[in-house]
Amino acid sequence: MSSSRKKVTVVGAGYTGSTTAFLIAHKELADVVLVDIPKMENSTKGKALDMQESGPVEGFDVKIVGTSDYKETADSDVVIITAGVARRPGMSRDDLVSINVGIMKDVTKQIVKFSPHCTIIVLSNPVDAMTYTVYKESKFPKNRVIGQSGVLDTARFRTFIAQELNLSVKDVTGFVLGGHGDSMVPLIRYSYAGGIPIETLIPKDRIDAIVERTRKGGGEIVSLLGNGSAYYAPAASLVQMAEAVLKDKRRVLPAIAYLEGEYGYSDLYLGVPVVLGKNGVEKIIELSLNKEERAALDQSVDSVKHVLQTI
Amino acid sequence: MSSSRKKVTVVGAGYTGSTTAFLIAHKELADVVLVDIPKMENSTKGKALDMQESGPVEGFDVKIVGTSDYKETADSDVVIITAGVARRPGMSRDDLVSINVGIMKDVTKQIVKFSPHCTIIVLSNPVDAMTYTVYKESKFPKNRVIGQSGVLDTARFRTFIAQELNLSVKDVTGFVLGGHGDSMVPLIRYSYAGGIPIETLIPKDRIDAIVERTRKGGGEIVSLLGNGSAYYAPAASLVQMAEAVLKDKRRVLPAIAYLEGEYGYSDLYLGVPVVLGKNGVEKIIELSLNKEERAALDQSVDSVKHVLQTI
Amino acid sequence: MSSSRKKVTVVGAGYTGSTTAFLIAHKELADVVLVDIPKMENSTKGKALDMQESGPVEGFDVKIVGTSDYKETADSDVVIITAGVARRPGMSRDDLVSINVGIMKDVTKQIVKFSPHCTIIVLSNPVDAMTYTVYKESKFPKNRVIGQSGVLDTARFRTFIAQELNLSVKDVTGFVLGGHGDSMVPLIRYSYAGGIPIETLIPKDRIDAIVERTRKGGGEIVSLLGNGSAYYAPAASLVQMAEAVLKDKRRVLPAIAYLEGEYGYSDLYLGVPVVLGKNGVEKIIELSLNKEERAALDQSVDSVKHVLQTI
Amino acid sequence: MSSSRKKVTVVGAGYTGSTTAFLIAHKELADVVLVDIPKMENSTKGKALDMQESGPVEGFDVKIVGTSDYKETADSDVVIITAGVARRPGMSRDDLVSINVGIMKDVTKQIVKFSPHCTIIVLSNPVDAMTYTVYKESKFPKNRVIGQSGVLDTARFRTFIAQELNLSVKDVTGFVLGGHGDSMVPLIRYSYAGGIPIETLIPKDRIDAIVERTRKGGGEIVSLLGNGSAYYAPAASLVQMAEAVLKDKRRVLPAIAYLEGEYGYSDLYLGVPVVLGKNGVEKIIELSLNKEERAALDQSVDSVKHVLQTI
Repeated sequence: MSSSRKKVTVVGAGYTGSTTAFLIAHKELADVVLVDIPKMENSTKGKALDMQESGPVEGFDVKIVGTSDYKETADSDVVIITAGVARRPGMSRDDLVSINVGIMKDVTKQIVKFSPHCTIIVLSNPVDAMTYTVYKESKFPKNRVIGQSGVLDTARFRTFIAQELNLSVKDVTGFVLGGHGDSMVPLIRYSYAGGIPIETLIPKDRIDAIVERTRKGGGEIVSLLGNGSAYYAPAASLVQMAEAVLKDKRRVLPAIAYLEGEYGYSDLYLGVPVVLGKNGVEKIIELSLNKEERAALDQSVDSVKHVLQTI
Repeated sequence: MSSSRKKVTVVGAGYTGSTTAFLIAHKELADVVLVDIPKMENSTKGKALDMQESGPVEGFDVKIVGTSDYKETADSDVVIITAGVARRPGMSRDDLVSINVGIMKDVTKQIVKFSPHCTIIVLSNPVDAMTYTVYKESKFPKNRVIGQSGVLDTARFRTFIAQELNLSVKDVTGFVLGGHGDSMVPLIRYSYAGGIPIETLIPKDRIDAIVERTRKGGGEIVSLLGNGSAYYAPAASLVQMAEAVLKDKRRVLPAIAYLEGEYGYSDLYLGVPVVLGKNGVEKIIELSLNKEERAALDQSVDSVKHVLQTI
Repeated sequence: MSSSRKKVTVVGAGYTGSTTAFLIAHKELADVVLVDIPKMENSTKGKALDMQESGPVEGFDVKIVGTSDYKETADSDVVIITAGVARRPGMSRDDLVSINVGIMKDVTKQIVKFSPHCTIIVLSNPVDAMTYTVYKESKFPKNRVIGQSGVLDTARFRTFIAQELNLSVKDVTGFVLGGHGDSMVPLIRYSYAGGIPIETLIPKDRIDAIVERTRKGGGEIVSLLGNGSAYYAPAASLVQMAEAVLKDKRRVLPAIAYLEGEYGYSDLYLGVPVVLGKNGVEKIIELSLNKEERAALDQSVDSVKHVLQTI
Repeated sequence: MSSSRKKVTVVGAGYTGSTTAFLIAHKELADVVLVDIPKMENSTKGKALDMQESGPVEGFDVKIVGTSDYKETADSDVVIITAGVARRPGMSRDDLVSINVGIMKDVTKQIVKFSPHCTIIVLSNPVDAMTYTVYKESKFPKNRVIGQSGVLDTARFRTFIAQELNLSVKDVTGFVLGGHGDSMVPLIRYSYAGGIPIETLIPKDRIDAIVERTRKGGGEIVSLLGNGSAYYAPAASLVQMAEAVLKDKRRVLPAIAYLEGEYGYSDLYLGVPVVLGKNGVEKIIELSLNKEERAALDQSVDSVKHVLQTI
């Protein structure tokens, strides 16, 4: 017999964090604590209150709290980390990494202190390295620290394929390995429309163009918005992963998981297909890769390792 | 027999407009066109694309278009207007009204041209006057031009009552007449928890405090956010009204409707209980008011009329 | 932190029981065990398997088990009892009561043995007496044994009122006290459409006719079906009560609760407004009744007591 | 701009028909008319009323009508045919076909008369032949007459695969061609778990066993129930097809479609992958088959043709 409602903490009350909190409440998946730094405490409270006030209209009864005090996050089932700075003009990539590593460490200390049994899902960029940092800092078992990238990458890929073929997104699937964005390794032979390999439905040059657009998918939004980056699809992706854990759905989803020999790599976090359930990563699914896929994955791993070395 | 999917246009791609668009897509109520001025075209497209890319994860198949070209809004079933400027330091209330009247007129011309049979729902502030402006400019029958304020005001009121009594928001109802926010006229005797008048459940001073907090509900969020105003609960409120029209639900909701003698007033838009269905305002429900309520409503009407005179 | 998925057992795999199981799975509220007597084991398994096979289409991941072995019900959070015989020609009402009392006792022994911490919701008829029997047999605290009747009675009442006024059922509420069906005590002054007392919207003779139709609502379905009784609305009602407990929603719903002095009665189960949350009946709400209502409730209590005496 | 709510007629108020009606109402997809023969008029009305009375609890506002008068079905967008007799002891398969052909013809005349623009979805058995009969009788364009079998067959297949691998049903897909049940042609190479071909995840003998269980899936339920056949999963399957049409989702689903040369066959209805949208079958998707698959499909076609000849 299980006790009452679940609890999810979302760290970082920016657009992705607050949209994530809103979707969790809206689906009545769990009570939500939205937490940010003291300087942002009031605006975090304001967003939480605004969401809470949509409850009577949407019909949800979960509680949404905005705070800067991690005490209020105590005993969360799942903690989602969206905190971190974005690269600003004049900031080197290494500077970015170094700042966000510091944030991850601070945040993780607090999470571990108040929710020692939670599963952590990391979105902060560069996500492979940030997930690794959170894992090391938390000293949690590897299955309870996961990074998000593949759900979002495949969501974009599926959107473009569905538009290309004029079909329901529900019947289009995609498959990626490796890093996020540029270093993403799409496995086209595992991507389908209605179960039919898209290679037989779409000419190669169009697939190539769609893969390229997917790789640059985050940048496309950044450049359209002019100011800021995507948050709707990233938030939906985080919520899907959290839901799989909260409801023990055993979804097969691409996620950034800690490898110990799988795919021939060790001691790093990499995007691979996993089974997500109540214990977080219940299983890593290994696929046999062809030469080309292996080479692309090696390259992706190099880029992941390169970032890790700067830490 | 009806044809295919419904279509909703949301005018104004700020936070309220884009959250409204997202909720409509998320509920698969209709295809959505998010439209803003040419200067904002790219960011509008960016937001629409980001939302669309959440579709494979959320499982919705409606289309979301961002544009500055009203041609793309053609044949909408419902058009929601969230456009307009907010008051900035140094801007008088009259300046604000005058700017927003101009925006309403421009927007309405475009809506009428491309969607001559739609129902229009207005959120822009001051909402009573803006709804009136849209009505006059559109030359639509009165039932097809409606303003939002009461759904949001009662959502806040219900949130606070539910917290006070520690009950599900689903079982708490509230009732308001008149203008939005400060000039709102709450009818406490028509507000219930589980069907029981809240007057018998909550001491008078606590009810008074909750009413006062509700009146200032928009300001409370503004002051917490520091920068910007509420958008989650306003968007949810707009979507509930749009859904009632799109699905001909015949909901009884408080809405800003054009009066021709009801409640003793004429030729103005005022917050009253209405039946919302496929024709927009299907009916205005008239209640007998006691002396105190009547006085408060008269005062609310004065403040509405005062704004109308500045137009 | 709470562990994984909730679990609900439904006792009795007739139409109400199986529709209840289906709705719980469909809403992904909990894993479901549908249990019936050994003679019905195969058909119970068949229904559970058929429901489970709708999972890929509906997208739910909970498990549905059909069985006659209570071991499989172990550690349920909520147990819903729909078991019991219906009155057949030639069977006296006392015979019916006596048979169903025996069934309740057997079933309760099994429930208590395998799910000592569950909340029990009883539908079996006559429901006031059967809930009392389950309570006594279970030795559970009173808050964890509840009977269903008012949610269904008000669902019917709300349906008829909504049809009368041509309004959304979402905006019509009803309120009943006392026994189920014939001995139901409607509190018309607490019944609203859009928050407005229906007494001001519907002529008295029409309200009387609707009350009378509601009282006979179960019989109306029985007589139309020719063979068997209602199950869709009863199942939906049970699921709403179970959801309130599983999600700790603190809904205000009419339910059959154990009275110890409330409303002036003791040691009996009677339909009253309660707050339903994770502990079952979190609170009984007492209303002051007028003379007429009090008299009707006394009469309802007499009829409940009369059945209790035959036990 | 489209007018108001959609309308669906369900012909046949048995368990499948009524569960189908309930799901459509529950999802608020359309108003529903449940129609059966005059002898069943009262019980049809009883079921419809019982469902309608669940509306206030579930929160749906569509209308559900039970009738034996096809006038009430007028202007339906989609008509689902579940009518027909089941084989009884002593009845030859040819007798069954001949009786159901008569029923299809009668029913189709009424449908065409009152809803000349609808899309028809047929479930009645033997479904390939019954869909053909309805097509010929209706004189509708071929895209507006469709049969259901593959959604149900793959739902069962997916259930068994998900159980075998202990994975979410959301991530398991299956693919079938040809007739229903025994003559179903599974395309294992197009069946995946998380996008990974199940052939690489499950040993061949287990896949064979699961295919065999799927083929006999209807029989398994019949034999467990003892009396009657499956209705939950069939109803969910019908509703998924209807939803694809009503919302123009362009789902890729297996369906029984009229072939004019596709896959090398003509003038018959056969299970093939199609795109379902507002025009019914928007497109038939042709796959290149290997020798074994082709042989199995030929055999399936033979069995379909054999039944057609008895008509």
